[in-house]
Amino acid sequence: MREGKEEHVPMVVIRRLPKYYRYLGELVERKVERISSQTLADMMGISASQLRQDLNHFGEFGQQGYGYRVEDLYQEIGRILGLEKEYNMIIVGAGNLGQALANYPNFAKRGFVLKGVFDVNPKLIGLKLRDNEIMDTDGLEDFIRANKIDIGIITVPKEAAQEVADRMVRAGIKAIWNFAPVDLKVPKEVILVNEHLADRLMEISFRLKELGYEE
Amino acid sequence: MREGKEEHVPMVVIRRLPKYYRYLGELVERKVERISSQTLADMMGISASQLRQDLNHFGEFGQQGYGYRVEDLYQEIGRILGLEKEYNMIIVGAGNLGQALANYPNFAKRGFVLKGVFDVNPKLIGLKLRDNEIMDTDGLEDFIRANKIDIGIITVPKEAAQEVADRMVRAGIKAIWNFAPVDLKVPKEVILVNEHLADRLMEISFRLKELGYEE
Repeated sequence: MREGKEEHVPMVVIRRLPKYYRYLGELVERKVERISSQTLADMMGISASQLRQDLNHFGEFGQQGYGYRVEDLYQEIGRILGLEKEYNMIIVGAGNLGQALANYPNFAKRGFVLKGVFDVNPKLIGLKLRDNEIMDTDGLEDFIRANKIDIGIITVPKEAAQEVADRMVRAGIKAIWNFAPVDLKVPKEVILVNEHLADRLMEISFRLKELGYEE
Repeated sequence: MREGKEEHVPMVVIRRLPKYYRYLGELVERKVERISSQTLADMMGISASQLRQDLNHFGEFGQQGYGYRVEDLYQEIGRILGLEKEYNMIIVGAGNLGQALANYPNFAKRGFVLKGVFDVNPKLIGLKLRDNEIMDTDGLEDFIRANKIDIGIITVPKEAAQEVADRMVRAGIKAIWNFAPVDLKVPKEVILVNEHLADRLMEISFRLKELGYEE
């Protein structure tokens, strides 16, 4: 592939790559070797022209009349997404959501390794979640530094989220995935993804209205 | 506002409306009456021209040199998002994620009312989650019909998700929000939002790579 071609890829295209990666992964498992852009697009519920346009951002993967080599395309998208290396994660907040994420099966499979889970609640500290014993947040900064944690997941209540983010940033974390319903502030060099679950419901209500379900 | 103007609004714009709605809601709570597009855009970390472009899809909200009326804009975006009515929801799958969503504080505030939680596990059936007693999935279809459920949230394991979706569809549900890591198939008239949490981590790993954090 052409070096440097991916420099100015729009974020909307990047956001679609994980979906390509998932579908191609299933095809790899089913030992499909080649697929036409039309067939892949149909599977994914998008148009073949969008698929071709998206993948053209990253170089030439397909051949006219031949289709894509599934395994090559899968590997290449994985490389583009940075999945050839492992990332170390922690979760701060071991309530239901933190526990659900700690047990989510698809993270480790993609190279996202959970190294620790933290909480302030003495009733939770010491409990085991799969391979992780819940630790006291007192040791958060030291743990991040000692274990070279890349990604911090925040699942604490809204009121505590900014303080947890500040502590993660001070300890040198590189990215934060925040589930608390508040827009956190972090320095520019730290990647921040705010997960606003209620926003998705508002998208659903918009679409219900559009479809005339409003009565 | 001009009727019918919102017909062809791009989905990327719709996806940003909940964020506008959240920020405006905070301003309403703080009793701010007016705000310039520049100030609001700065708060939200976007450009003023994007903000103006987005809101222009829905009519004329602001006045040159005067700014937006916060309360009016907040109400209007709520209306566009279909938030003036209430929606009835159920959750199927009362594990950690289902319980976390059942306890998520911001859903009811926006008019999304949880009417029931279902599971197949006899150890969970009968337990109380806030106001909801966990019910046996045997009664799922009857419950959906009797309670005019609009939105079904699926938090069961991957293997069970399609069957749950099929049952919801047969009982006449209008929208499905799926957290199982599998792309469900539903009829065109049913709104489907698949929440692939691992996709967000892949977006983070892409951005880590882009920032040169790779080794």
